[in-house]
Order: sequence, then structure tokens, then C-alpha cells
Amino acid sequence: MDHACLSKDLACFLAEGIKPGVPYWLNPEESHHLKNVLRLKAGEKLALLDLEGREYLGKVLKIDKAGVLVKAESLLRYEEPLKPKLIFLLPLLKKDWLSFLVEKAVELGVYEVIPVLTERTVVKPGPNLTAKLEKRARQSLKQCRRLWPLHIKEPLPLSKAAKITADLKVFAYERESQKTLAETLKTSLKVKSACFITGPEGGFSRQEAALLLKHQFKPAGLGHLILRAETAALYLMCVAHFNLFLQKS
Amino acid sequence: MDHACLSKDLACFLAEGIKPGVPYWLNPEESHHLKNVLRLKAGEKLALLDLEGREYLGKVLKIDKAGVLVKAESLLRYEEPLKPKLIFLLPLLKKDWLSFLVEKAVELGVYEVIPVLTERTVVKPGPNLTAKLEKRARQSLKQCRRLWPLHIKEPLPLSKAAKITADLKVFAYERESQKTLAETLKTSLKVKSACFITGPEGGFSRQEAALLLKHQFKPAGLGHLILRAETAALYLMCVAHFNLFLQKS
Repeated sequence: MDHACLSKDLACFLAEGIKPGVPYWLNPEESHHLKNVLRLKAGEKLALLDLEGREYLGKVLKIDKAGVLVKAESLLRYEEPLKPKLIFLLPLLKKDWLSFLVEKAVELGVYEVIPVLTERTVVKPGPNLTAKLEKRARQSLKQCRRLWPLHIKEPLPLSKAAKITADLKVFAYERESQKTLAETLKTSLKVKSACFITGPEGGFSRQEAALLLKHQFKPAGLGHLILRAETAALYLMCVAHFNLFLQKS
Repeated sequence: MDHACLSKDLACFLAEGIKPGVPYWLNPEESHHLKNVLRLKAGEKLALLDLEGREYLGKVLKIDKAGVLVKAESLLRYEEPLKPKLIFLLPLLKKDWLSFLVEKAVELGVYEVIPVLTERTVVKPGPNLTAKLEKRARQSLKQCRRLWPLHIKEPLPLSKAAKITADLKVFAYERESQKTLAETLKTSLKVKSACFITGPEGGFSRQEAALLLKHQFKPAGLGHLILRAETAALYLMCVAHFNLFLQKS
């Protein structure tokens, strides 16, 4: 934890696949952030994330028109990937809430996000949806100093997404009693992967609920109040994090 | 639950203290919503919340320049107040995140929110802060059909807020190990009130953490990633809801 605290005072950059001692060109997005936003100079220290579990202490070697050259000098910390792998099938939502959920998914240790199209999904996925979500995920990753990337997949219709393979599959369903989620999570501390799905504004139709049941999703009520679509997804992220990461640690 | 489903199809209005059979003038905010936003007409059915646990089926008696007169006709549902009472001491945050947290506090069954000013709080409370938060809370209450109000207090400095009385007091502290929160909540299922506090952007200072400890707040780590200030507050709301409401039900 001391290393983490040290590195928090350093500006942090993504340097996928960087190796210690080997000069590395930052990509254009990271170069721009270093040069034009944070205005670092040659010789300054920085933190570098290799996106494979390592955070290095490094320095800026040079900044020129070709880009920004950096070097990783010493390993600050290494972390294993989080277990279990949390997979969230997330609805497309109004008002950019899906981007917000992706930001939170990074903070809360989610492994993979798959946007899902359902019967009552009114928002259409734009052509740049995945790229936009990936950018938001990278920003969030730097902010919370997460060492493994969040994987973001192309949007899928529910009929395909429901077939996903995971040791535990849960869907939020308002018609379900309140007990199931606690019981399901209590008996699932040892799973290797867990998949959660929540519906869009308006929820799942009865046909969709039947489809999810058919594909081994367990229904879970989230209490007697009507949660907004983004709250339901956030709720499952927080509760999954608490039960599957924190509680067992 | 059938009643709740029935009433979800009806527009819902706040009518504090309404009694069945007695004509009742909606307040100006609710009258505006009924007349100008949802455009209901005299004779139409609606749901009325008395803010003391009751939802009534009612109808519009008349709409004129004086306002909107309604009547509660039959009780759709009654609920006891949620127990334990969850109290959240919330930091003032940038970008209107505090309003967002108030909206979520309503959905997640929080009893009371007190905005708190700390050493690293950079946002200043405006003169209309409490009124603004109360309005957001009312909107959220109608949306999630909550039957008891969320209480919102005037902002307090941390030195005063820390003295609050509650059976369980928890503060989010990044320097704390990850176990405490799970253990604390596991042993607290029977408390009558629980108070949670999270810090602003930048967290609590060491002096503030010492003050909170002195006033019986238990420190809780929320995992090894750095959560944004609004995420930490949301996380505690979700986890408190799950552990103190859902799990014991």
C-alpha cells in the first residue's frame, strides 16, 4: 500500500506491454495527455501501467514532434487479476448512463462489459459506441490505478448475450422476491466467473425473463422500491464487489 | 406487490397528510406537474402518497386557477418505515454529484442525509442547497414510489456532524484494510440506526480520521482501487441496503 500511495502523487500513463529498461513510445492519446494537458517535461518522473498487472516508476526520456518517449525504471507493484471474473451485461441507457456505468465498472473491478439490446431498449448503439466506452474505461483506469484492463465487447442482442458461459448467472428482476440475491451470492463465494444482467428503462419483458431463466440466469429482486435502470446495474456491481471480492478477502 | 404494480400505471403525486374521502388541494409544485406536465383532467384516476407510509388510489376533483383539488378514495398499500434508519453524512462534491447521491439515497431507502463540510471540501454550499436537494429527493421519491420521505438536513462542519448518535457508525477510509466493512456489517444486523460517512474528492485528512475514530466511527476500506468520491458514497449505500435490508428480510 505504501507503493500505491507513492505512485498516487505521480501522473500515470498507459503503456501497454512496456518492459523495464526499454524505451517506449506512448500512443497518441497518452502523448497528448502528457504533453498538452499535464505538460510534463523531459526528465520528469511518472507512473506507467503495462495493463498486465504492473505499475512502474518511470521517466520521460524525450518529447518531440514524433511523440513522447518514456522508460520504465522500477516496478512499483504487481497484482494478479481479480477473481472471480465479473461480467456485466449492461443495457444501453438514455443520457450517457452506459458510459457512467463503464467508469464505475472499472472502479469496481469488473472484468468485462457487454452492451445488450433488449425489447425495451430505446437507445440505438452509435457506430462509435465501443470506442467511446473504451476511452471512458481507460480514463477511469488511470484515475483509480487499476492494473488490468476492463474488456468491452460489441453490443449483442439479448438472445445471443443470454448464452454466455459463467459459473454464476444473475438477472435483476423486479417481480422476484428479495431473498434470492443474498442467498445466491452467499453460496457463490468460490465461483471463477459471475455474470450479471440488468434491464433498460422499463425492465425486461416476461418473454425475456423466460429466456434468461432458460439460460440459467437466476432472478434476483433488489428490494421493494423501483430502482432506476442505472441504479440497478450499479447496485449489482457494488454488491458483487462486496460479496465476491471484499467479503472473502 | 400487485397493488404496487397497479399503481405504477397511474401518475403519482405527493399529498402530505392527505386523508381518505377528504378533498385535498395539491401544493403548487404538484399542481403544476399534474396540470402542465402530465395534463391530467378532472375525473382522472391518480396515485397519492401521504408521506406517512400510505399510497392511495384517488381522483382529480377539479382543476381551476385556485389549484388542483384531489381526493384519496382507497388505500393501495401501507408500509412501515424501513429499519434500521440509515443516515448518510455526504460530502459536497463537484458537478452536482451530491444531488445525484440524494436521488440514489431515496431509491436505496436511506432515512436521512446530512451534507458535511470537511477540510478538503472545495465546493461551497449555496444558499438554496437544502431546497434544491429536497426537490430532487421528492422527484426521486415519486419515481421509485417510496412511501416515507428522505430527511435532508442543513450542511454541518465535520466537527459537529461527527457527534451524531447512531448504533453503528462507519467511515470510508482508504488506508484501512479491506476486511472491516464486511465484519462490521455482519455483526450489525440488529442495529436500529446506522450512520455512514464518506469523504470529498481527496478524502479525509489524518486529523479528520482521528476525529471520526474518537467519535466511534469505525474505519472501513472499500477495496484496493481508488474509488471516486461519489462512487464511495454510492458503494456504502448499496452495501448497507443489501446487508441491512435485503439480507435479513
